[in-house]
Amino acid sequence: MTATLLVLNGPNLNMLGTRQPELYGHETLADVESICLRRGEVHDLAIDFRQTNHEGELIGWLHQARGKVAGVVLNPAAWTHTSVAIRDAILASELPVIEVHISNVHQREAFRHRSYISDVAVGVICGLGTHGYALAIDGFAHRLEGASR
Amino acid sequence: MTATLLVLNGPNLNMLGTRQPELYGHETLADVESICLRRGEVHDLAIDFRQTNHEGELIGWLHQARGKVAGVVLNPAAWTHTSVAIRDAILASELPVIEVHISNVHQREAFRHRSYISDVAVGVICGLGTHGYALAIDGFAHRLEGASR
Amino acid sequence: MTATLLVLNGPNLNMLGTRQPELYGHETLADVESICLRRGEVHDLAIDFRQTNHEGELIGWLHQARGKVAGVVLNPAAWTHTSVAIRDAILASELPVIEVHISNVHQREAFRHRSYISDVAVGVICGLGTHGYALAIDGFAHRLEGASR
Amino acid sequence: MTATLLVLNGPNLNMLGTRQPELYGHETLADVESICLRRGEVHDLAIDFRQTNHEGELIGWLHQARGKVAGVVLNPAAWTHTSVAIRDAILASELPVIEVHISNVHQREAFRHRSYISDVAVGVICGLGTHGYALAIDGFAHRLEGASR
Amino acid sequence: MTATLLVLNGPNLNMLGTRQPELYGHETLADVESICLRRGEVHDLAIDFRQTNHEGELIGWLHQARGKVAGVVLNPAAWTHTSVAIRDAILASELPVIEVHISNVHQREAFRHRSYISDVAVGVICGLGTHGYALAIDGFAHRLEGASR
Amino acid sequence: MTATLLVLNGPNLNMLGTRQPELYGHETLADVESICLRRGEVHDLAIDFRQTNHEGELIGWLHQARGKVAGVVLNPAAWTHTSVAIRDAILASELPVIEVHISNVHQREAFRHRSYISDVAVGVICGLGTHGYALAIDGFAHRLEGASR
Amino acid sequence: MTATLLVLNGPNLNMLGTRQPELYGHETLADVESICLRRGEVHDLAIDFRQTNHEGELIGWLHQARGKVAGVVLNPAAWTHTSVAIRDAILASELPVIEVHISNVHQREAFRHRSYISDVAVGVICGLGTHGYALAIDGFAHRLEGASR
Amino acid sequence: MTATLLVLNGPNLNMLGTRQPELYGHETLADVESICLRRGEVHDLAIDFRQTNHEGELIGWLHQARGKVAGVVLNPAAWTHTSVAIRDAILASELPVIEVHISNVHQREAFRHRSYISDVAVGVICGLGTHGYALAIDGFAHRLEGASR
Amino acid sequence: MTATLLVLNGPNLNMLGTRQPELYGHETLADVESICLRRGEVHDLAIDFRQTNHEGELIGWLHQARGKVAGVVLNPAAWTHTSVAIRDAILASELPVIEVHISNVHQREAFRHRSYISDVAVGVICGLGTHGYALAIDGFAHRLEGASR
Amino acid sequence: MTATLLVLNGPNLNMLGTRQPELYGHETLADVESICLRRGEVHDLAIDFRQTNHEGELIGWLHQARGKVAGVVLNPAAWTHTSVAIRDAILASELPVIEVHISNVHQREAFRHRSYISDVAVGVICGLGTHGYALAIDGFAHRLEGASR
Amino acid sequence: MTATLLVLNGPNLNMLGTRQPELYGHETLADVESICLRRGEVHDLAIDFRQTNHEGELIGWLHQARGKVAGVVLNPAAWTHTSVAIRDAILASELPVIEVHISNVHQREAFRHRSYISDVAVGVICGLGTHGYALAIDGFAHRLEGASR
Amino acid sequence: MTATLLVLNGPNLNMLGTRQPELYGHETLADVESICLRRGEVHDLAIDFRQTNHEGELIGWLHQARGKVAGVVLNPAAWTHTSVAIRDAILASELPVIEVHISNVHQREAFRHRSYISDVAVGVICGLGTHGYALAIDGFAHRLEGASR
Repeated sequence: MTATLLVLNGPNLNMLGTRQPELYGHETLADVESICLRRGEVHDLAIDFRQTNHEGELIGWLHQARGKVAGVVLNPAAWTHTSVAIRDAILASELPVIEVHISNVHQREAFRHRSYISDVAVGVICGLGTHGYALAIDGFAHRLEGASR
Repeated sequence: MTATLLVLNGPNLNMLGTRQPELYGHETLADVESICLRRGEVHDLAIDFRQTNHEGELIGWLHQARGKVAGVVLNPAAWTHTSVAIRDAILASELPVIEVHISNVHQREAFRHRSYISDVAVGVICGLGTHGYALAIDGFAHRLEGASR
Repeated sequence: MTATLLVLNGPNLNMLGTRQPELYGHETLADVESICLRRGEVHDLAIDFRQTNHEGELIGWLHQARGKVAGVVLNPAAWTHTSVAIRDAILASELPVIEVHISNVHQREAFRHRSYISDVAVGVICGLGTHGYALAIDGFAHRLEGASR
Repeated sequence: MTATLLVLNGPNLNMLGTRQPELYGHETLADVESICLRRGEVHDLAIDFRQTNHEGELIGWLHQARGKVAGVVLNPAAWTHTSVAIRDAILASELPVIEVHISNVHQREAFRHRSYISDVAVGVICGLGTHGYALAIDGFAHRLEGASR
Repeated sequence: MTATLLVLNGPNLNMLGTRQPELYGHETLADVESICLRRGEVHDLAIDFRQTNHEGELIGWLHQARGKVAGVVLNPAAWTHTSVAIRDAILASELPVIEVHISNVHQREAFRHRSYISDVAVGVICGLGTHGYALAIDGFAHRLEGASR
Repeated sequence: MTATLLVLNGPNLNMLGTRQPELYGHETLADVESICLRRGEVHDLAIDFRQTNHEGELIGWLHQARGKVAGVVLNPAAWTHTSVAIRDAILASELPVIEVHISNVHQREAFRHRSYISDVAVGVICGLGTHGYALAIDGFAHRLEGASR
Repeated sequence: MTATLLVLNGPNLNMLGTRQPELYGHETLADVESICLRRGEVHDLAIDFRQTNHEGELIGWLHQARGKVAGVVLNPAAWTHTSVAIRDAILASELPVIEVHISNVHQREAFRHRSYISDVAVGVICGLGTHGYALAIDGFAHRLEGASR
Repeated sequence: MTATLLVLNGPNLNMLGTRQPELYGHETLADVESICLRRGEVHDLAIDFRQTNHEGELIGWLHQARGKVAGVVLNPAAWTHTSVAIRDAILASELPVIEVHISNVHQREAFRHRSYISDVAVGVICGLGTHGYALAIDGFAHRLEGASR
Repeated sequence: MTATLLVLNGPNLNMLGTRQPELYGHETLADVESICLRRGEVHDLAIDFRQTNHEGELIGWLHQARGKVAGVVLNPAAWTHTSVAIRDAILASELPVIEVHISNVHQREAFRHRSYISDVAVGVICGLGTHGYALAIDGFAHRLEGASR
Repeated sequence: MTATLLVLNGPNLNMLGTRQPELYGHETLADVESICLRRGEVHDLAIDFRQTNHEGELIGWLHQARGKVAGVVLNPAAWTHTSVAIRDAILASELPVIEVHISNVHQREAFRHRSYISDVAVGVICGLGTHGYALAIDGFAHRLEGASR
Repeated sequence: MTATLLVLNGPNLNMLGTRQPELYGHETLADVESICLRRGEVHDLAIDFRQTNHEGELIGWLHQARGKVAGVVLNPAAWTHTSVAIRDAILASELPVIEVHISNVHQREAFRHRSYISDVAVGVICGLGTHGYALAIDGFAHRLEGASR
Repeated sequence: MTATLLVLNGPNLNMLGTRQPELYGHETLADVESICLRRGEVHDLAIDFRQTNHEGELIGWLHQARGKVAGVVLNPAAWTHTSVAIRDAILASELPVIEVHISNVHQREAFRHRSYISDVAVGVICGLGTHGYALAIDGFAHRLEGASR
C-alpha cells in the first residue's frame, strides 16, 4: 500500500511568487505542489498538499493525520517563531515532521532565529528554495526504506 | 436561579487521553466534562463546557459570556504563553477567571513558565491533574457563597 | 475615480465602549466607523471598515486588498505584540499601512512596548483616542495628494 | 489508619489578618488552621498545622516528616523566591507537596514570579484566598483515594 | 481668546533639509514652521515655534510655558533616548505633550527604540514626515474642542 | 512620654571593628550602640539596640515592635540583597524604617547593588560610616517633630 | 578660617514646590537653601548654594571648586542616571561628594535605579525629604571634626 | 568537464560510528564518504572528501578551493558555535556552502543553537542523519542545473 | 601542637545517604565524618566536624573559629547559591576556606552554577563524591607544610 | 590652499594634566594643542583646536565646519557613551571623523565600552596617550594624499 | 597491569613559572610533571604527561586514549571557556576527566566563569595550586580502588 | 643595536586583496609587509612580519618573542572575538601590543564588537586601512624614543 506524506504550509504562503520575489523567487504555491507530487511519484508516495492562514485549521490537520500518514513536511512560515500550539499539535500527532523554509531564516531578522518547531521536528532544511520540499520528501523516502528493511 | 460556569479549553485539549499519557494521563476531554458536570451538580451550578483550536472562537465565547455567567474556568493550554488577545478578551469580559493546567507547567520547558493570563486571573491551579477542574469549580462555588452571604 | 482606504481592526475591538472605558473611552466601534466614513467624505476617499478576532481572516483581507486599495489603517490591537504572520501579510500585500492605537501603549505593560508591525508600517499614531483614526486618514489623504501632484 | 497531612507556613504568616488586609483579607492563621482541620475531618485526614519564621526549623520539619505523612501543604511565603535549601529539603523528604499562596503572586512584584519550589511540587494553587488550603487538602484526598483504589 | 501651542524642536533639527535628505526629505525647519502656522490658523490657534541644541534651554521653555499654553508639540530628536531631564521637565510643566518624529524611528537603530518621553506624553506620531506636525496640531485642536464643549 | 526607636543589625555586624577595618573602620558594635544612645538622649528618644545572625529572629523583632516603637533604624547587612522575608516583615510591621549601611555598597560587588529593602523603607543612608546611625536617628527625630507639631 | 560647602542642584529643582508636590512636598528651593544656611551656621560652615539646568555649568562649578571647598552636597536629579560627564567632573574636582535625593529613588521607575554618581561619592542619602540636605551637611561636619582632631 | 564538490568535516567527526551512537548512529566517516561518492556519481559530480581537527587546516582548504570547486558541503561540528575564523574563510572563498549537521542541534544544549556559519551559508540541513550529506549534494546538483540552463 | 580543621556542612546534609542516592551515594554524614577523622590522623590534624540547617548557626561557628583553626572545609550545600551572609562571615573570619561539593554542580540546574562562596574561598573541589572532603584535608595539609617549612 | 583639520575636545579635557595623572599623564591640553600644531606643520595642514564642556557648543562647531574643513579629530570624552546628539551632528556635518581617546577605554569601566560615535567615525585610536592625536593627524594626511593623487 | 593516567595541559601552560608568578607561582611545567610522576608512583599508576598550544593536537590525544587509559587529568587553560570541540572530544573519548585549574578562576575575569568542560567532567578542582594535579591523581586512584573492589 | 618589532597577522589575512575588496581594499599582505618594512627603516627598527591560520602557531610566536622584541603589532582578525588563549599568550609574553584592524569593526556584526585583546593591549587602531600598520609602528617608535630619553 502506498504511504502518504502530508505537506502543510502556513500563513502567507498562498502569496508565494507574488510576494517579495527577490527573497522567495517567482514560483507559486501551485508550482511547489507540482514539485512535491512529482517527487512523491518517484518514491511511490502519495502527497496531500495544503495551505492555511488559520492556526486552528493547521492544528486540526495535524490531529486528523495521527496514525494515518507516514510523515509531515511542514513549512510553518511566521508561526515558526510564535506558535506553541502548533508545537503541541506536532507532539499530539506523534508524527515525524521535517521543517522546511524556502529562504535562509538565519539571514533575516533576529526574531526569525527562534523556532518553537525545530526541536520537536526530526530535522530542518532551510535556504535551498522550493527544492527544499523535494529534499524533505527524499528524506522521508530514505527513512521509510530504512524502516521497511 | 442556577448560576452558570463556563469551562473553556484551548488548543490540542481535544487530543487529551491519546496524547502523551505519561504527562496528561488517560482521561479524555469527555471524562473531564463529566467531572465538571458532576461537580457542578454538587454545588447546583450549570456547566457550559467547550473546546476550540481557534483563538478567535475562544475570544468570541469570552465576549458573549460577559454579564451572563458567574465565572470562567480556563485551560488556555499553549495560548497561555503566546496570546495577548485572550488576555485582553478576559479583561473585556470583566469575568472572574480561574486558570487551570493539568500538568505542572513549572516542570516543563522554560517558555511555558511565562503566562499572559495568570495576572489577569483570580487565581491559578496547576499540576493536580484533571481534578484541578473540580477544584476550580469548588473555588467558584466558595466565592459565590461568600458573595451571596 | 475614488480611492479606497481599508480600515482594519484586530481582536476585542468589537467590545469597544463597554470594555475598560477609563482606558478606551465610551465610543463604540460603530462610532469609530462613523468617524472614518465622515473623514473619508471630506477627502473623497471610500472607507472599507472591518473587525475580526481571527488572525487568519485579517491576513486574508490584507492579501485580497493587494493592488486594490490606496492604503490600510490598521489597529492590530493585541496582535501588535505577537503576530509575525500579520507582519508578513503586510509585506505580501505591498500596501502602505498606518498603525493606530487608541490608548498610549507606551504607558501600559512592558510586553506592549514591542511591536512586530511598526517597522513595516509607514508610520504610527497612538494615544490620541479614536481621533487617531481620523488623523491616519488625513495622513493618507496628504500622501495621495503628494502622489497625484 | 488515618493518614496525616502536614500544613506548613513560612515567614510572616503569623501576622495574617493584621498585615495588609486589602491583600490577604481579615482571617488570621488560627482561622486558616480551623479551615484545614474541618477539611481534614471531611476526608478523615489528620492535620498537623505549623508556622515558623526560621528556615532551619521548616527544613527540620520536612526531614522529620519523611515516610510519616501522606503529603505536605506548603505556603513558603517569601522563601518561595529565595530558598534553595527548602527546595532541597522537599527533595530529601521524598514527600508530595502542594504549594499554596493566598494572594495571586502573578499580580505582584517581578521578583515574586520566580519560584524555587513549584517545579519540585506536585502542583500549585494560588490566588484563591485561604480557601486554597482547603482545595489543596481536597487535592491530596483525591490523590489518596486514587492510590488506595 | 486664542489658545497657544508651543512647538519645540530638539538638537540638529536646525539642519533639516541639508542633513540626510533620503531620511528626512528636503524641507527645512522654516518650511515646518510654515506648515505649523498655517495649521494653527485653520484651528484659530497661535503657534510658538522654536528649536535649540541646548538641553537646558528646552527645559527652560517647558518650565516657562507652564500654565500659559494649551499644549506642546515636541520633537525631542536625539534627546528622546537619553534625556531624563526633559522627561522631568514635561512632568514639571504639567502640560499635555504630543511627541512627533519625522522618520519612523522603529525602522532605525535599536537605541532609537527606547524613549524616555513616550510614556509621559499624551500620544506619539511618527514616520509621517513633516505632515506629522500638522496632525499633532489637529490632535490638540480636537482635544480642545472636547474640553470647551 | 518618651518614644522608642528600634536599631536592628543583621548578620556579621557583631564582628564590627575586627572584620575588614579598611572597609568598616575600627569601631565595634558596642561603640555604635553608644553613638545611638547618646544621639537618642539629645532628642529624648529611647533606643533599643540589637543584633542577630538569625533571619527569623530579626523577623520576630519587627513583628513585636508593631504599634510599639516610633521607627526602626535597620542595617540589614547581607540580607539586604537576599531576604524577601525581611521585606515582608517590614510591611507587616507597618513601621517606618530607615536603612543604614556603614560602607558605600555602590562601590562594592554588583550583587550588593540590588536591595529588597530600599523601596519599602522611608529612606536610605549609606557610606557615611557609623555616623550614619546618628544621622538616621536625627532623621526620625525630625519626622517626629513634624508629626507632633 | 570657616570652611565652605558647595550645595549643587541639578535640572528641574528650580521648580521644587510646584512640581509633583505629592512626591517632593511643598517646600521651594529657597526653603531648601534656608535649611542649608541654618545648618551651616550650627556647624560654622559657609554654604554656597546653586542650581542649574545646564550640565556644562554644573561641570564648571565642580572644576572651579577644586581645592577651594571642603565638600559638595550634590543633588544631580535626572543627570544621576545619564551623565558620565558629571561623574568625571567629580573625579577631576578631587572633592568629597555626598549625593542627596529628596524622594526615595528606589520606589520610582527602574531607570532611576542606575546611578553614575553613587560609586564616586562618599555616600548617599535618599528619601528623607529636604531634611536630607541637613543630614548631609551634618555628615560633612562630622568628617571635618574627625580630620581636624 | 566534471564539476567538483568539496565535502569538509570538522573536529571529532573522525570518531563517527564509535562516539555516542545513540546520537550519531553506527555509520563511520568512511561510510559517509561512500554515500557522498555514490551521490556524486549520480549527478556526475566529483567529490573531494576531507576531515580535520585543526581549524587552521580547514581554513586553508577553503582558501585553496576558491575559484576551483562548485560548492562546499560543510559539517563544521563544534566549530559551528565558536569559530568566526571559519566564517571569514567562507566569505574569503566566495564559495556557496551548504551547512550539514547529522543530529538535530536544536534538540541539544543551548550553546549549540547559535551558529556563526548559517547566515553566510546558502542553506542548512540538520537532523536527517548521514543522509543529509546526500541531500546537500542533491541540492548543489539542482543549483548547478539551474545555473547551466 | 596539633592544628585543627573545621569541617562545616550546610542544610540537608544530615539527610545524606537517604536522600537521592543516585546523586549523592549511600554514605551517611557519619561516614563522611569518619573519612575526615581518619584523614586528619594521617596528617596529624584535629578535625571538628559539624552540620546545621540554620544559617545563623553556621555564621556563628565561622566567627568563633577566627584565629583558632587552621582552615575550614565548607560544604555550603544550597546556601552556596543564595547566602551573602555566609560569604561575609568567611571574610569576617579571615580563615582560608576550601569549598567542597559531593556532586558535580555543573551538571545540575542553572541556578546551582552561581556561587557566592567560590571567589572568597582558596579553592573548590566538586564532583569527586565524599572523597572530596579527604582531598580538601590533604590540600590544607599541603598548605600547612608549605607554611611551616 | 592649506586644508584645515578641526580638533575637538569634549568635557573635562580642559582639566588635563591636573586630573588623574596616573591615567592621563602630566601633559596639559595646551601641550596637546602644541603637538597637533607641530604635526599639522609637518603635513602643511592648518589646525583649529577647541574644547568645550557644553554639548550644544560642540554640536554647533560640527554644524559650522560642514563643507569647510577636511576632517575632524574628535575626543568626545564622556559624551562618547551617552550622546546620540553628537552622533547625529557628525552625520549632519558629513565630515570624516577620527575618534581619539588618550587612555585605553577598554581597560576601564564597562559603561565606557559602549560608544555612540565609533560606528559613524572613519576609525578609532585609543590608549596611545596624547601621541594618538598626532597619529590621527597623520591618518588624515595619508587620506588626503590618496585623495589628491 | 599498571593503569595509565593521561595528564593534558592546554595553551600557555608551557610558560608556567615565568608568566605572572603572582598568580601561578614559580613552579615550571617540568615541576608539575615531577609532582604527577611521584604521585603516580605512590598509587602504582603510569603517568603520561603532555602540553600543547594546538587545539587539534589535544583533540587527537583524547581520541587516541579512548579505551587505553584509566582517566584524564585535564587543565584546559583558556580553552575551558571557548572550545566546544574539546568538550566533544571528551564525550567521544568516553573517558572520565577531572578538570584542574591552578588558580581560582572564580576570582578572575567574568568570561573565565563559564566552562564548556565542567559538566562533561567527573569533577573539578581549582585554586589549590599545582598540588591540585596531585589531588586529581589521588581522586582517580580512589575511583579505581572502588572499581577494582 | 636595532630594536625589532614583531608584526603578527591572524587567520584569513593571507587572502587580503582578493577577499571582499569593498571592505578591505585591493592591497595584498605582501603590500602590507612592504609598508611595514619601509616604516621600520624610517625609525631604524627591524620588522619581523608573519601570518598564520593556526592559533597555536601564533601563541608560539608570542612565547618565543618574550624578552627579544621591543613590541608587537597584532592584527588578530577573527580571533579577536573568540580566543582567550591568545589573550593569555600576550600576558605570558609580557610584551607591549598594539592591536590593529584594517576595517572599522564597530561598523560590522555585533559579535565583532567584543574583544578579548583590547584590554591587555597598549592601544588599538582600527578603520584606517592598511595605513593603520604604519601608524602602529610610529606609535612604538614614539614609545621607544620616550624610553630611551
